Amino acid sequence: MADTEYRLYYWPGIQGRGEFVRLVLEDTGAPYVDVARLPDDEGGGMGALVGFLKRDDVGTPTFAPPILQHGDLYVSQTATICAYLGERHGLAPDGDARWQAQYLQLTLADFVAEIHDTHHPIAGSLYYDDQKAEAQRRTAAFRDERLPKFLSYFERVLTLNAAADGRWFVGADCSHADLSLFQVVAGLEYAFPNALGALRDGHPHVFALRDRVRKRPNVAAYLASERRIPFNEHGIFRHYPELDAPA
Amino acid sequence: MADTEYRLYYWPGIQGRGEFVRLVLEDTGAPYVDVARLPDDEGGGMGALVGFLKRDDVGTPTFAPPILQHGDLYVSQTATICAYLGERHGLAPDGDARWQAQYLQLTLADFVAEIHDTHHPIAGSLYYDDQKAEAQRRTAAFRDERLPKFLSYFERVLTLNAAADGRWFVGADCSHADLSLFQVVAGLEYAFPNALGALRDGHPHVFALRDRVRKRPNVAAYLASERRIPFNEHGIFRHYPELDAPA
Repeated sequence: MADTEYRLYYWPGIQGRGEFVRLVLEDTGAPYVDVARLPDDEGGGMGALVGFLKRDDVGTPTFAPPILQHGDLYVSQTATICAYLGERHGLAPDGDARWQAQYLQLTLADFVAEIHDTHHPIAGSLYYDDQKAEAQRRTAAFRDERLPKFLSYFERVLTLNAAADGRWFVGADCSHADLSLFQVVAGLEYAFPNALGALRDGHPHVFALRDRVRKRPNVAAYLASERRIPFNEHGIFRHYPELDAPA
Repeated sequence: MADTEYRLYYWPGIQGRGEFVRLVLEDTGAPYVDVARLPDDEGGGMGALVGFLKRDDVGTPTFAPPILQHGDLYVSQTATICAYLGERHGLAPDGDARWQAQYLQLTLADFVAEIHDTHHPIAGSLYYDDQKAEAQRRTAAFRDERLPKFLSYFERVLTLNAAADGRWFVGADCSHADLSLFQVVAGLEYAFPNALGALRDGHPHVFALRDRVRKRPNVAAYLASERRIPFNEHGIFRHYPELDAPA
């Protein structure tokens, strides 16, 4: 394996948490294999992922996908993988400011977990249909309180950095956390078009950053490719019209 | 401020997420100030914390406590703070293995979020009494599926490392992630004594590690001191008998 070839292990049919890693990999231009999306007879498919999770020879085992393999090193947890790649490929601030990108990335991970739980407030092992009443109640609180709170926070961070001439979250350059904010806004736009639309005018820096990321050449090429799996109702960001705000 | 003096900003009346940071600070023996636990007239109290959260001159602002101030650097997010302190004070593996401690720490953070949501499955802004029915349902799934799944995962990691003569999560030495596992097990023992007790025999490495951490001299001294806030029903780990398994 070449030093810079990465192997990503993630569910093949959804963007999910793996998409945050895919975006960092795509932006860097580093060669990688999305293992479970290979055909079965090329060592891919669901079987490859499930088999990998059972292996005892991968350093510290992983609790859940995504996992990034880089030579003999295996890294799991989305935020950790994004920081690992970002720090290797110039998508992280230098020096102590790298910790700032890391905790922004963790705040985005918390936000993603809350977004997931809007449609699964009781258990991930149950169908949405089996927890619809609870999902209505949780999502109402999410739309009223949590969505505005998270967006206002990100707007505040971007506004303060813009006052220092920064067009990204931290310092002068794009980092892995900026790519992840793009993905969260794109997902919210899919899942909650009305609720998010109502917040658009109040959060200009958030939406400008979203636009800036999606125009990055490697990101734009990726989004236009077949490698980008469309949003769907098996992932984190699900469009259930009954959970969105009224139009 | 001396180079090694830390200032922790966290809610003064609960262990909460701040406790993971307090344990790392206590184990290292580094001097620190738990700002909001100082008297008001010494610059402490709730007002100090709330005022801090509004400040625009602290680097990247924080979404929520805890925050660690170290000179001019401000770090937020529990897992990031633990990694920052661990890497500075010999409580993290060397080299690339430090990423393994980081993603174990994030897996513990995910577990903690799920534990919190057992009593608050709808919204953190509502009282437990206003979401008791949903809490019963979510907690039943937590006890049946998630609690055993997380504990089995940590047992597996410890068993594999023990086969390589390691008595901790990663390699030969204690890391910040080990301290955090102690805290999670202690919290579960308080909140769900019956459910956790039923899993004890099946997870010997997890409970042995818990015992090993609590006997570390600095940790033991801390736990016996008044600095250790007792568990209570305002934090993450709450003992509501109706949510635990039957005795």
